[in-house]
Amino acid sequence: MQNTLKNLLDKIEPVSRELETQIQAHLDDLTHPPGSLGRLEETAMHYCLIRQTLEPKLEKKRIYTFAADHGVAEENLSIAPKEVTQQMVLNMLGGGAGVNVLSRHAGVENKVVDIGVDHDFGNPPGLINCKVRYGTANIRKGPAMSFKEAEQAILAGAELAREAAEEGTDILGTGEMGIANTTPASALFAAWLPTDAETVTGRGTGINDEQLARKVEVIREALETNRAALGDPLSTLAALGGLEIAGICGLCLGAAAARIPVMVDGFISSAGAFAAIQLKPEVKDYLFFSHRSAEAGHKIFLGCIDSEPLLDLGMRLGEGTGAALAINLIDASIKIYNEMATFSGAGIKL
Amino acid sequence: MQNTLKNLLDKIEPVSRELETQIQAHLDDLTHPPGSLGRLEETAMHYCLIRQTLEPKLEKKRIYTFAADHGVAEENLSIAPKEVTQQMVLNMLGGGAGVNVLSRHAGVENKVVDIGVDHDFGNPPGLINCKVRYGTANIRKGPAMSFKEAEQAILAGAELAREAAEEGTDILGTGEMGIANTTPASALFAAWLPTDAETVTGRGTGINDEQLARKVEVIREALETNRAALGDPLSTLAALGGLEIAGICGLCLGAAAARIPVMVDGFISSAGAFAAIQLKPEVKDYLFFSHRSAEAGHKIFLGCIDSEPLLDLGMRLGEGTGAALAINLIDASIKIYNEMATFSGAGIKL
Repeated sequence: MQNTLKNLLDKIEPVSRELETQIQAHLDDLTHPPGSLGRLEETAMHYCLIRQTLEPKLEKKRIYTFAADHGVAEENLSIAPKEVTQQMVLNMLGGGAGVNVLSRHAGVENKVVDIGVDHDFGNPPGLINCKVRYGTANIRKGPAMSFKEAEQAILAGAELAREAAEEGTDILGTGEMGIANTTPASALFAAWLPTDAETVTGRGTGINDEQLARKVEVIREALETNRAALGDPLSTLAALGGLEIAGICGLCLGAAAARIPVMVDGFISSAGAFAAIQLKPEVKDYLFFSHRSAEAGHKIFLGCIDSEPLLDLGMRLGEGTGAALAINLIDASIKIYNEMATFSGAGIKL
Repeated sequence: MQNTLKNLLDKIEPVSRELETQIQAHLDDLTHPPGSLGRLEETAMHYCLIRQTLEPKLEKKRIYTFAADHGVAEENLSIAPKEVTQQMVLNMLGGGAGVNVLSRHAGVENKVVDIGVDHDFGNPPGLINCKVRYGTANIRKGPAMSFKEAEQAILAGAELAREAAEEGTDILGTGEMGIANTTPASALFAAWLPTDAETVTGRGTGINDEQLARKVEVIREALETNRAALGDPLSTLAALGGLEIAGICGLCLGAAAARIPVMVDGFISSAGAFAAIQLKPEVKDYLFFSHRSAEAGHKIFLGCIDSEPLLDLGMRLGEGTGAALAINLIDASIKIYNEMATFSGAGIKL
């Protein structure tokens, strides 16, 4: 286990572009007008560079869905009560959630991680127990968690990535489940972009105008209450939460340390990825962004880090649903790289 | 066989929205905030309405790639010589083209149709022979083909759709191969939108500035030379070509007549779909648009018919590559419809 955050960050190196010319030469030799497969070629290049190979394989794909509860849920900022977090964890273990369906579709393993659900599950088959605490505290009133708890959640996520890499996983995806978690995510974006709360706050599960106004107000209060902590990325993350966001941050860091790519899901996952990028900017080299969430702040974040996601399907479910669909596109791009005939082989000349 | 175009058009009826409320009720019962799967829900709805069912299946998927040559290729408007059309047909039959790779990825059968290649293939396994003529004439100098030949190509495409439906195909996709075929497609868009040639003309395979200027000039001359024919959709199609575009038009019409959906590929396929929509506006009910091509005119066309494609990946290869990827998304959406747990079943309540 990466025993301290510093050790973890020290292991992350930028992706070398040394193989770029050779990878590009192979892509240009595929029987098509050069560049005409657009972003499939770009993602194949990106994947090969991360894996440092001219012979990419993409077999073992895995999404970790981090589940946690949020003290701020008591402010009534979601259409769903807090208990839905635990119910959806069980639904995921049973294979009936959106992320299960889309993971099966894409040939992706889906692992569910309890990193902070306010419920004792016992020991149900398939649930990975990394519980740091029983949900965060209400960020309107104080910090979500302690600095130490945030670090623990990050290291837990990183450890999962390290294990996955050891088990031969070729690509990881992020996902989350936690009623009210667009609130901490919006608060983090407001603190980090930085921008005002209103700009990055959306309707989450589909709240009405009144709830949306209240949500913006709660986020403003949370930023005010925790103002003293909003200095470095880690203390901000601890102050505003949540545990699943910290876990995703750790998964991104751990994957980068192990040199495997991460497909970032939507709005909440992006808050975790943003935390990771701020802790270690080189992490960005290892990330793919799957889709543009329908949640308002996501577009602003993606613009700010100059990343164009692969998909834009108006999705806002989370869980890893966007990651599953986009991993399927990476899969397609690696098949293009590996399976298309080449001009040199087919005797065709443009 | 639909023996006349009139018979074919008469068979096409608008899609009934009678089941909409019931389909929506099922989608809303899936364990997710209503609407949070965005366009996956929209496409599941669209698919169910076309198939008139509350229990959709999507098993047999097929793309027809229509290949044809173009007399206008002699104007040097592509980076590739005309012979590449026939070489790519053989590459597709061998399974090494982009469309083969992406079709395999998506579990889609790919069928290659010679509807007008300027070459005698003999009778290679897998090639469907619907040859109408050995390529079109040069549209800069006169009509691409006769009115009768255009009708023959349309009916051939429609017949393939009818056969596919009879064989239990659940969804069709379009594709094409034909060196220089962005030129007739651009000419058709210029005539039909209508707009000037420059607006809808792009770099196709990747031509330089000089070739692009020449291409625009050739299209203007083609529109001028054939001006008298640019009245009704069929005579315009005959005048400006090409045979694969007419075949795709027929595939769309035949699929609509058989009540199966069609995934339209990119720029050139859209010219065929546009022809079909003009011949029978109800056809649009049966179409999905797969992706926004990097070719300039495509965005204008999609805006004009008020259709938002599913993907935007900077692709411009054709062949059916975009259709294959997007059929995979429809597949995902039907799995969401069929495989997700329901609130009523899972005992979860938002």
